[in-house]
Amino acid sequence: MTRALTLAARGPARGPNPRVGCVLLAPDGRVLGEGWHQGAGTPHAEVAALTDARVRAGEAALHGATAVVTLEPCAHTGRTGPCSRALVAAGVARVVVAVADPNPVAAGGAVHLRSAGVEVVLGVEEEAGRALLGPWLVAVGRGRPYVTLKTATTLDGRVAAADGSSRWITSPESRAHAHALRAEVDALVVGTGTALADDPALTARTPAGEVAAHQPLRVVVGERDLPAGSRLARVLRDTGGSVAGTPADGGGEVLHLRTHDPREVLTALQAREVRHVLVEGGPTLAAAFLRADVVDRVHAYVAPVLLGGGRPAVADLGIASIGDALRLRTRAVRPLGPDVLVEADVEEED
Amino acid sequence: MTRALTLAARGPARGPNPRVGCVLLAPDGRVLGEGWHQGAGTPHAEVAALTDARVRAGEAALHGATAVVTLEPCAHTGRTGPCSRALVAAGVARVVVAVADPNPVAAGGAVHLRSAGVEVVLGVEEEAGRALLGPWLVAVGRGRPYVTLKTATTLDGRVAAADGSSRWITSPESRAHAHALRAEVDALVVGTGTALADDPALTARTPAGEVAAHQPLRVVVGERDLPAGSRLARVLRDTGGSVAGTPADGGGEVLHLRTHDPREVLTALQAREVRHVLVEGGPTLAAAFLRADVVDRVHAYVAPVLLGGGRPAVADLGIASIGDALRLRTRAVRPLGPDVLVEADVEEED
Repeated sequence: MTRALTLAARGPARGPNPRVGCVLLAPDGRVLGEGWHQGAGTPHAEVAALTDARVRAGEAALHGATAVVTLEPCAHTGRTGPCSRALVAAGVARVVVAVADPNPVAAGGAVHLRSAGVEVVLGVEEEAGRALLGPWLVAVGRGRPYVTLKTATTLDGRVAAADGSSRWITSPESRAHAHALRAEVDALVVGTGTALADDPALTARTPAGEVAAHQPLRVVVGERDLPAGSRLARVLRDTGGSVAGTPADGGGEVLHLRTHDPREVLTALQAREVRHVLVEGGPTLAAAFLRADVVDRVHAYVAPVLLGGGRPAVADLGIASIGDALRLRTRAVRPLGPDVLVEADVEEED
Repeated sequence: MTRALTLAARGPARGPNPRVGCVLLAPDGRVLGEGWHQGAGTPHAEVAALTDARVRAGEAALHGATAVVTLEPCAHTGRTGPCSRALVAAGVARVVVAVADPNPVAAGGAVHLRSAGVEVVLGVEEEAGRALLGPWLVAVGRGRPYVTLKTATTLDGRVAAADGSSRWITSPESRAHAHALRAEVDALVVGTGTALADDPALTARTPAGEVAAHQPLRVVVGERDLPAGSRLARVLRDTGGSVAGTPADGGGEVLHLRTHDPREVLTALQAREVRHVLVEGGPTLAAAFLRADVVDRVHAYVAPVLLGGGRPAVADLGIASIGDALRLRTRAVRPLGPDVLVEADVEEED
């Protein structure tokens, strides 16, 4: 399973599909083949491993083999055929799984396998398997994208000075980290207020300033029109708002959702197979997502700066007393140059 | 010098006098005696080392000896005689010093020694020597106490909820750390607003909840009277506002300074030989000290909590634009349970 997890980690952490690894073993423990999922539209890990085994060991060797796979094999036909059927057809006798599939569409693989006489063991190194699946697992389990809220504040919790200026509060190290995070998610969301105030490009850039290979979908939320001359409005106009358009600035597609309801936003993004959304600003949007109870993680970049005024990081949450404060669970504290990044989870309510 | 620095570190980091260590060496490098300063009213390090050498090696052995001392020997007569004269009288031929004395009252030791024919070498391991002297060195150099500003905030920079409640934003680990810090300073300062809102005891407590051995002076700043039934008012009444009174609650003396001017506060504390002041709250007092440009360090405890409203950590600083923000230099980032402590220095203006 350790090998299968290592293989799985080669796949992309973002995108509609999970990272999965698979190792096929002969009854004597010999490795017959390996595979991992390389992203939407490519073969699933089990199918890749079967193909590898056929080339390396021949079809006959698969009879009675054990498949070690990080996620329960699927039972549905998507862009690829169901993996559980492929395993049965190849004569695999035993399937060892780290994590059961939480996806109501794809689940049922274990039932299918067992009904075909295959022995199935679930939950082997489950914790490592779940960690590897990350936001995908939460997103599929909840039926909505996983939401990370990013803030970039002073030590006294401000995201902009009194005159609205905010460039730059955080350090180059923090900004590089935030760009790397953009390249790991499927979509970025900002409010029209931020789009109007900052005219952001919302591209993911490398530390050298070049556009990263993966660009998230760029989503602006709110009723207001974007200013005609703004960067995002220009992209929208050039691509005709079409999904197929490739923006000239090297960034992802731009989408303007004319709503204030975070749940509507997430439903629209879920329909586009977005699994991980990064909410970048501003305070009103952050508060709306928090109030709607749809934030899973907070990434708070905090710079050693004091302003004593200006825009607070989060607008009114309707919290009157300290007992009702939104308490997060710290996952990591990372110094980034002079700044610190606090990564914290919003706990599910009991 | 390394040995002298180690000896110096045995002394108390707080109090009116610096931490100093001294090693006396024979011309052949043999150690004749060692000493360190143990706090106000006790012998200076040089005198302690001379006494040690007389016991261990005899008076005659000091003739032609080298004194290695972390701070320039004093030239004034305070509660103890001047060290430079004692070194000359003992026949010391050479004095090696880490840090020159910045104290205008005590300085001049090197000049005195050289005029008496003693060779003086200054600046050996100066950086380590300065680090050891810490706030004392800054305080004496500036002629006012060293000021550490403490904040304890949510991730969005709030120190209290909308209804004023603030117990507890930070974790037990952070609060224990803050109590240890109280036991390292000479005085705590809060505004009357905090005294009214929170009725604090302002004692330094051990993790077990007992009062620590050292208690800082407790200072309330502001025009308003303390409520008659409040803890601090009770101590003030019991001790008659007298410096000599020993508070029944185990805490330090209580002082009410009826001013809003941080410089007046620091002048009053300087007169009491306070070298290190911890400003604990609230936002108005924090802003007053920052605006007066008398904060040397910020200790910001940040908890993974969001409030979206309530009292901000720092009141108006008169900063309109991000370019005028008060930028600090991060010294340390320490995870404390779920929280993080950012220690940052206020840089001197050029």
